[in-house]
Amino acid sequence: MADLDTARSDITRLLRVGSGVDLAKIDTSATPGFDGDKAAGEAALAAGAEEVANLQEQLYAASRLGDPRSVLLVLQAMDTAGKGGIVKHVVGSVDPQGVSIAAFKRPTPEEEAHDFLWRIRKRLPAPGLIGVFDRSHYESVLIHRVRGLSTPEEVEGRYPMIVDFEKELVASGVTVVKVMLHISRDEQKARLGERLERPDKHWKYNPGDVDERAFWDDYMDAYRVAIDRTSTDPAPWYVVPADRKWYARLAVHTLLLDALRSLKLEWPVAEFDVEVEKKRLAAT
Amino acid sequence: MADLDTARSDITRLLRVGSGVDLAKIDTSATPGFDGDKAAGEAALAAGAEEVANLQEQLYAASRLGDPRSVLLVLQAMDTAGKGGIVKHVVGSVDPQGVSIAAFKRPTPEEEAHDFLWRIRKRLPAPGLIGVFDRSHYESVLIHRVRGLSTPEEVEGRYPMIVDFEKELVASGVTVVKVMLHISRDEQKARLGERLERPDKHWKYNPGDVDERAFWDDYMDAYRVAIDRTSTDPAPWYVVPADRKWYARLAVHTLLLDALRSLKLEWPVAEFDVEVEKKRLAAT
Repeated sequence: MADLDTARSDITRLLRVGSGVDLAKIDTSATPGFDGDKAAGEAALAAGAEEVANLQEQLYAASRLGDPRSVLLVLQAMDTAGKGGIVKHVVGSVDPQGVSIAAFKRPTPEEEAHDFLWRIRKRLPAPGLIGVFDRSHYESVLIHRVRGLSTPEEVEGRYPMIVDFEKELVASGVTVVKVMLHISRDEQKARLGERLERPDKHWKYNPGDVDERAFWDDYMDAYRVAIDRTSTDPAPWYVVPADRKWYARLAVHTLLLDALRSLKLEWPVAEFDVEVEKKRLAAT
Repeated sequence: MADLDTARSDITRLLRVGSGVDLAKIDTSATPGFDGDKAAGEAALAAGAEEVANLQEQLYAASRLGDPRSVLLVLQAMDTAGKGGIVKHVVGSVDPQGVSIAAFKRPTPEEEAHDFLWRIRKRLPAPGLIGVFDRSHYESVLIHRVRGLSTPEEVEGRYPMIVDFEKELVASGVTVVKVMLHISRDEQKARLGERLERPDKHWKYNPGDVDERAFWDDYMDAYRVAIDRTSTDPAPWYVVPADRKWYARLAVHTLLLDALRSLKLEWPVAEFDVEVEKKRLAAT
């Protein structure tokens, strides 16, 4: 376990990025901080699953006695990069009652009529929960920038708003973990091809995904700017190489585990007199 | 698998109750429809978990192409009966993105200002999802009846409203599975005692739970009336003996599996031309 823990903390340290990040220089098939192969990676994930589940239960228990804290995992990625697999295989080991998942798709007309953070605020995790954002407020500076859904001035104005918003979240007790799953353009092609080969995967395929590939470089540039402008000490970005699904899952699991460990959780002390309650119960 | 499947369908048939149910005559430590012991029960649950997860994925896939269907599992029980364990161990094997959990606690002032079904409607599962109600609209005819939170006339008026509401749900594509986890008064005492013995369980203990034990018979009567008046062909009630946690979990798993199987799900057929898409993808 000691070795595994060392590897884990290395993962968190190695994947953290800030201003000046160069996404093209990051090897999307690498496995930073982990020496093992796929089987070893899956075993390491399985070995750590219970601790994540237990820490979440402690976080929930604390919330019942007024602790406001929660954890928010923000997942951003190009299509097919594996967000769904992260939720299923990493978050899936936590008690579903302890998880709050929000998938942000194309905004509704009502959502569009509001500030871009309006729909985001409504889905923040309650105290005690692990929240997962499958896409997020970052869409408003990613696809909006690439496809011109907002003016350049509007997009430009959002970066400082995001920084302030996340600072506010952290101050209110939310541990924010922002993840970009980083795959290569070729790996996406292979994964879309697999969806076309398998009738049980056809429902996941959207012809628009192929059109979007023409904007790959623009998206990478939008990610670069977003990370550059919004990776802060309170709410850092992590870029997770994701061509190997098993590594991406182990890495996000490790980020989540480290976030939970950093909260130094303990079982809350009873606010009632245990001996008195034992007698009261015995009398029933 | 054939034997297991026979046992499973027996469970669903044997646990179904309707008018004239006599809760006192149901052995809360029995294991109807299952001959095996705890280890065999846990193995049977583990063996069926993947099928539940796969069927939910098919349900979700269908919803993406317009299928309105969903499944709603309604859980009602006395405190400590194991609702949380059901969610963790039965629903927990499904992709968390495919599950929508709503825990109905004491209503907020805003909720109280509305009809009792108002807050319930807001938490119905979206198409493609398995919804779980941890407590439900039935609180308004259970604790409200026992503790006089509403007048007898108000409570009386709610049974037909519930029947109509659930009929409407079923007509709109929701498969409704209503479960009462049925424990004995002694088993509850033992479980509350265990919470007091273990500091890591203190947060789950509420002194009010002991007070509520004085109303046990009244609660059983309220359950009897509720089941009697609201167990319908489209939305039947199941009473699950729950003194043995492993059996209750296997039983609810089986109810869920049977509900999903009854939907006769298949992978949706692609609405795009697969060969055309392969060529378009190859050109990128």
